[in-house]
Amino acid sequence: MDKFKSRTEIGIFALGGLGEVGKNMYVIDYLEQLFIIDAGILFPDEHLLGVDYVIPDFTYLVENQHKIVGLFITHGHEDHIGGIPFLLKKVKIPKIYAAGVTVDLIENKLEEYPELLNNTQIVEFKSHFVYKFKGVEISFLRLNHSIPDSFAIVLKTDLGTIVHTGDFKIDLTPVGPSAEYDKLSALGSEGVLALLSDSTNAIKEGFSESEKKIGSSIKELFSKIQDRIIVATFASNMYRVQQIVQACIDCNRKIAIFGRSMEKTIEVGQQIGYIKAPKGTIIDATEINNYPTNELCFLCTGSQGEPLAALSRVANGTHKFIKLIPGDTIIFSSSPIPGNQEGVNRTINALFKRGANVVTHSPITDTHTTGHGSQGELKLMLTLLRPKYFIPIHGEYRMQRIHADLAIECGVKKENTFVLENGDVVAINDHSARLAGHVTAGDVYIDGTGVGDISGTIIKERKTLSEDGMFALVITIDTKAKTLPIEPQVISRGFIYMKDSEELTKSFIEETKAYLKEKMANAEQVNLGMLKAGLADVLAKSINEKTDRNPMVIPIFMDIA
Amino acid sequence: MDKFKSRTEIGIFALGGLGEVGKNMYVIDYLEQLFIIDAGILFPDEHLLGVDYVIPDFTYLVENQHKIVGLFITHGHEDHIGGIPFLLKKVKIPKIYAAGVTVDLIENKLEEYPELLNNTQIVEFKSHFVYKFKGVEISFLRLNHSIPDSFAIVLKTDLGTIVHTGDFKIDLTPVGPSAEYDKLSALGSEGVLALLSDSTNAIKEGFSESEKKIGSSIKELFSKIQDRIIVATFASNMYRVQQIVQACIDCNRKIAIFGRSMEKTIEVGQQIGYIKAPKGTIIDATEINNYPTNELCFLCTGSQGEPLAALSRVANGTHKFIKLIPGDTIIFSSSPIPGNQEGVNRTINALFKRGANVVTHSPITDTHTTGHGSQGELKLMLTLLRPKYFIPIHGEYRMQRIHADLAIECGVKKENTFVLENGDVVAINDHSARLAGHVTAGDVYIDGTGVGDISGTIIKERKTLSEDGMFALVITIDTKAKTLPIEPQVISRGFIYMKDSEELTKSFIEETKAYLKEKMANAEQVNLGMLKAGLADVLAKSINEKTDRNPMVIPIFMDIA
Repeated sequence: MDKFKSRTEIGIFALGGLGEVGKNMYVIDYLEQLFIIDAGILFPDEHLLGVDYVIPDFTYLVENQHKIVGLFITHGHEDHIGGIPFLLKKVKIPKIYAAGVTVDLIENKLEEYPELLNNTQIVEFKSHFVYKFKGVEISFLRLNHSIPDSFAIVLKTDLGTIVHTGDFKIDLTPVGPSAEYDKLSALGSEGVLALLSDSTNAIKEGFSESEKKIGSSIKELFSKIQDRIIVATFASNMYRVQQIVQACIDCNRKIAIFGRSMEKTIEVGQQIGYIKAPKGTIIDATEINNYPTNELCFLCTGSQGEPLAALSRVANGTHKFIKLIPGDTIIFSSSPIPGNQEGVNRTINALFKRGANVVTHSPITDTHTTGHGSQGELKLMLTLLRPKYFIPIHGEYRMQRIHADLAIECGVKKENTFVLENGDVVAINDHSARLAGHVTAGDVYIDGTGVGDISGTIIKERKTLSEDGMFALVITIDTKAKTLPIEPQVISRGFIYMKDSEELTKSFIEETKAYLKEKMANAEQVNLGMLKAGLADVLAKSINEKTDRNPMVIPIFMDIA
Repeated sequence: MDKFKSRTEIGIFALGGLGEVGKNMYVIDYLEQLFIIDAGILFPDEHLLGVDYVIPDFTYLVENQHKIVGLFITHGHEDHIGGIPFLLKKVKIPKIYAAGVTVDLIENKLEEYPELLNNTQIVEFKSHFVYKFKGVEISFLRLNHSIPDSFAIVLKTDLGTIVHTGDFKIDLTPVGPSAEYDKLSALGSEGVLALLSDSTNAIKEGFSESEKKIGSSIKELFSKIQDRIIVATFASNMYRVQQIVQACIDCNRKIAIFGRSMEKTIEVGQQIGYIKAPKGTIIDATEINNYPTNELCFLCTGSQGEPLAALSRVANGTHKFIKLIPGDTIIFSSSPIPGNQEGVNRTINALFKRGANVVTHSPITDTHTTGHGSQGELKLMLTLLRPKYFIPIHGEYRMQRIHADLAIECGVKKENTFVLENGDVVAINDHSARLAGHVTAGDVYIDGTGVGDISGTIIKERKTLSEDGMFALVITIDTKAKTLPIEPQVISRGFIYMKDSEELTKSFIEETKAYLKEKMANAEQVNLGMLKAGLADVLAKSINEKTDRNPMVIPIFMDIA
């Protein structure tokens, strides 16, 4: 596989976002210029023990820093902007291009790291702007998603037009501005060289439901409820929040806001005009007892069962302001993100136990819709743009694969679809496209402040510790006299309850002493390393035989010789 | 709350199965006789680190052993029979009553523990049997579920009839024998005192789909596939297996079986006649290369993404016999059980990556149906039996609560519904029912051979270890001379990568030395316990400040004085 030639070919690859849902980061490399699209994080699953988030490996960008032209952000979700602080710490990015509320969200994020702002500049995209680079003109194209101001990035190059959709759905009755279908059609007519399109819901048949439909379901639900209403939803979904606020206005309810990110949404949303609440609609937490129960609605964070969020504290009875009373109805205007189902169920059970009514999203209650297009919508995008080459992005392998099949159905040639992994490079020139090698790509684990690498080894150690704990034996040894001057001491955590297992512990100590005495007696000179390895094996085997568990066995030798 | 009086009242309680899905165990206590229904295990979620399974706390049964009359088993799923070996180890159960294939499954389970069979007797229920006890007559009533031979247990007592449904759905076109609706209706007409009914799908609206419908979907799917077919399903669902075998017969395919539990199902199923395969239909794994691809079907375990099951090994390319080839289609005749979604997705992605086609259950493919009745079916059961008292069982709190609401809709008085927790006792006499205290109930964690208790403390330690690892410092000390004769030694696992963090490690050692020297210098006599506690605090704080992590900090002192 020839490496691609930046002077005559366009290189396209992902540093994150393929084979996974999260840490989106795509790179377009043309005429020695790197255009980066998005810089997200991924929230790890339970296998990455103790890891707070995963970011892309930025090695390629560090090594090619001089070629970086800018970072273009499609929208403000964490899996698209959450990696920016980490990126800026490692790589100089001259300009970050973003639009609308995304600019606020990035600025908020970087407030904590003022030093990072010195080396970059945030450029706010406005309608009809075009950014010109060598052989490339870039503009943003408005689409719809579950956060306001979501855009596709359009790169018109000498070789043809590349469209990166970002996250999108086709919502023909959106809350907020419509997608720019006219521009999409025009691009299709002019000819699209390559499309990179969101695969998140590629396995879902049909079409997703419109955001506006959810607004009317919520209002209908509100109109049937006699007592207090507590609604939990994603704070980032400003349009949903606006629809809940509107339902309160229509149903004559005051609304109080709980949870830091929800307060922030209300603040920013009102500033930029996406949230419209007449004076007096939103009340302070301290005022909630001044109104009858049928005139109140509380809007909360915690729709994903996050243990520290407002709704979880309500469910546990530890919320400062909201104590559940008979008649309260909790509405989940959300669906559990994969991995969160269990936490959400825990919250629902706890709410029911406190006597509350709970309404979750179902085809009948209809309190939530996705931000990602199903197969029908993905095919519409493919049909409008009619790309020559197609690269499904954002999603696990099966989603990418099925999305590629949809593209073929819509007329893209099979050999022109590229189901890639992170790091795989597609090189496109004026007459063909090919796989052109691989750049460094991978996962970087962030735990705490990020001091020291969290490597696979550390995760593996945590895994062993988590399953069977550890069993350490501290052995004070005199390798010259070949004696054990003090009785070996056992330290065990997460393995067995020591007080109930004195016999067992004693037997391990006796085995240790016997093993060491025999080995030392037979050795000319004591080799501590070999002694340690040998003892660890013997102990691990004996522990497994007696308990059927495999704790981490750690012999620690203190040689006083 | 008065304790219930076994001479005049019927006591009903659960030792497991309420507020959870799993470890089902219910007890009916009447005239100083304990009738136990089911003895299941629960597969723990990821929070119970390293725990293999959870069983009920048997304390109440141990303390009231003399009153135990027998254990009645509704059906052969692990959450109903998996606890039997653990129960028999602790408690003498004179007789275990079971029916049909459940008897085989219990016998298979107890083959590993021949000593347990000496103290009990397995009694096989046959149609129309009635077991007579003091004031109570017990019989089994056939229902439908996702394993053959699922029964309700009917206790006709002096005070009235109690029905425990076990797990069930209403399947009007079942594979295998119909449920005994006539008997249910007759019971309803005679009058039912109390109903304990399966709540697993109480939050699902409508009716579940018939097992037979799945058979025809699978056959239709088979008829469209040109190459090899690999089907994964639950080995315990013998009727599903039979339908897959039938689809093979109808579509002229040989079937090879992979996975130990699937082989066992085929063996037992053929013996008892639930699986009917003409000679030559089932072929050996070694023969699979003798047939063209369009005449082959492989039936596998692994529908839940279990890492060691046949399908996972196929997906990883490590299966001994099945190597994927282009054209292979994998059909999941299953749905992921909550908690297994991620593992299943991993398997699907891996299969796609190897070029296979994957068909999962969806409303369109229709390759799976549940064994638990939805709201319509639960209401039908309530309507047929018209119980005076209702206790929703099998399920999380929200499922029980919603099931109780269904009962009220069907005419049960609100005050006659009991949404209980494990251990809560309902006492029913000839004119009323009431809550009557609580018996010991709880979770017992089994890890490995069960040596030593796995307590909450051990789980908590594993949790800490899993998130940030551990940091141990071995300090050889001379408390008389007040010196540290050897440099303290650091042992860290799952915390930081030591080679990259020498500076940091050194700083912790220096802090330790400084702290100890100061404390020893100022003390008349060195108190090792206090020194240890103080040092642990100081180190934990310093580690957190420098790394933002909270490993388990373990100072270990070796006093050579």
